[in-house]
Amino acid sequence: MRFSRFVHSGGVSFGVVEGERSATGLGGLTVAEVASTPFEDVRFTGQRWALADVRLLAPIFSSKVIGVGRNYAEHAAEHGAEVPKEPLIFLKPSTAVIGPNDAIRLPVQSKQVEHEAELAVVIGLTPGRRLNRAEAAKAVFGYTCANDVTARDLQRSDGQWTRAKGFDSFCPIGPWIETELDVADLEVRCEVGRDPEQMETRQLGRTRDMVFDVPGLVSYVSHVMTLLPGDLILTGTPAGVSPLAAGDMVTVSVEGIGELSNPVVALD
Amino acid sequence: MRFSRFVHSGGVSFGVVEGERSATGLGGLTVAEVASTPFEDVRFTGQRWALADVRLLAPIFSSKVIGVGRNYAEHAAEHGAEVPKEPLIFLKPSTAVIGPNDAIRLPVQSKQVEHEAELAVVIGLTPGRRLNRAEAAKAVFGYTCANDVTARDLQRSDGQWTRAKGFDSFCPIGPWIETELDVADLEVRCEVGRDPEQMETRQLGRTRDMVFDVPGLVSYVSHVMTLLPGDLILTGTPAGVSPLAAGDMVTVSVEGIGELSNPVVALD
Repeated sequence: MRFSRFVHSGGVSFGVVEGERSATGLGGLTVAEVASTPFEDVRFTGQRWALADVRLLAPIFSSKVIGVGRNYAEHAAEHGAEVPKEPLIFLKPSTAVIGPNDAIRLPVQSKQVEHEAELAVVIGLTPGRRLNRAEAAKAVFGYTCANDVTARDLQRSDGQWTRAKGFDSFCPIGPWIETELDVADLEVRCEVGRDPEQMETRQLGRTRDMVFDVPGLVSYVSHVMTLLPGDLILTGTPAGVSPLAAGDMVTVSVEGIGELSNPVVALD
Repeated sequence: MRFSRFVHSGGVSFGVVEGERSATGLGGLTVAEVASTPFEDVRFTGQRWALADVRLLAPIFSSKVIGVGRNYAEHAAEHGAEVPKEPLIFLKPSTAVIGPNDAIRLPVQSKQVEHEAELAVVIGLTPGRRLNRAEAAKAVFGYTCANDVTARDLQRSDGQWTRAKGFDSFCPIGPWIETELDVADLEVRCEVGRDPEQMETRQLGRTRDMVFDVPGLVSYVSHVMTLLPGDLILTGTPAGVSPLAAGDMVTVSVEGIGELSNPVVALD
C-alpha cells in the first residue's frame, strides 16, 4: 500500500494512493482517505480525491531522522573517503523535513548545496531497541524517497555534519510510504534541471550496491538509540552528487516507490 | 521560577518548585502543581507536595537537543583541539533524554563513557528562526543542568559524534528549569563518586569562560534550524571530563539552578 498525507478542501488527512501512474503524470491516481494512522488497521472513510486535486505533504512525522554516511562505495570514493567498517550514522533535525514540491531553500552560509538521492526506511510500531536482523526487518513499516540535501562546503569545514545537513528544508521526503517492497535491488535516481522536459540524470545507482543493507542498518541504529514509530533512516546515497542552484527542480526517484520533486530557491 | 515535571500519586504534572534548599537536601522544598504548560501564564491548581514525596522527571520534552562542541578553551585543549571560529554544533536524539535519578546505562559498545557537565538553554515560545542576539536572548525560556554523556572511544573512532553522544540515557537533564537567571558567570561543576558522602569534583568551570555566549549560540543555531518551544541547547563543557563506571553516582550542578544526580549502571 502507498500511504500519503495530504491537504484537501476539508483539511489534512492520511490516505492510500490507488491506481497506476500514467506516462504523463499523476493522471491515473486517486487517494482514498483513511480515518486511521498509517500504523493501525486501515479504516477508509469513503472519501476519495484525484491525486492531482490534493497537495501531498511529507508522509510522516518523525521524532528522529537518522542518516548513514558512505553507504555506497562509489560515493565514498568521490569524496576521497573509505567505506566504513561499521555504518557511520548522523542525525538531521525534524525541522529539516519538507514534503513533495516544497521548496529547498539555499542558505546564505553555503556556496555549494548538493542533492543526495536516497531510499528512506520508515519505522513502524514494533519496539525498536537492540533488534537483531530478523527483528529489524519486521520493524520496517515501509519506504519512501528522500533527498539528504547537504551543504558540501560546510560539511568539509565543520567536520561534524550537523549544520551542513541540518538547515530547514534540507530533508525532502515522499511522495508517499510504500509498505510492500523488496528493496534488495532497486534503482535510485536523481534528476536535476531547469526545464521539466530536459532533466539531466545526475545520480543513478542500485540498492544492491549498499555496503550495509536495510536490516543491517536498522539493527545497528537500534543498538544505539531506541527507534520510535515514524522514525526515518536514510540509507545513503550513490555516486554523482552535484550542486543545486536557485531555479533548479530536483527529482529523486526510487524504483517501486515514486518520484519526489522539489524546486530550489534562494533563501533571501 | 523553577519549573519541574513530576510524578505524584495522581499522575504526572508540571509544577513550580518553591522554598529554599536546606543544607541536607531537598527538605525545605515544595512543588505547587500548575494546570498550564511552562510556556503559558501560570495557573496553580492548589495542589502541593513536599518535593521529597514526588519523583522528578526530565522537566521538558524537546523536539531537538543541540550540543555545542569545544565551547570552553581548556576542554578543547584537553582533547588536543583548537577552539573553533564558529560554534561547532551537533545533535543528540530525544530518546537519549532522561531525568534526575534515572540511570545512565553504559552500552557494551564502549569502554570509555564520560560525563560532560553543562548549562542547558530551554527555548520558549518566541519564533526561533534567524534571530539576532537581542531576539535570541528573548527566545530563551530558562535554564537547566545537563550531562552530555559521551562514549569518548567511539567519538574518536567514528569521527562523527552522533553514535558516541546518542545512546539511550546519554542526556540527563534537570532537576528543573530556572526561568530567572543571569548566566554570564555561573559555576558549572561535576562530582563523581561511589559514596554520596565522598564525591570527588571532576569538573569545575565558570560560564564566563565560554567561547560563545548564550545569545550567540542561540542566534547561530537559529540561522541553521528553526528552534521550537522546549528545544534544548547544551552550551558545552569545561575541562575535567573523565570516565564513569557502573556503581558511580554523577552529579552535575550549575550555580543558581540546582543539582542533577544520576546513577551509572551497566546495560547488561
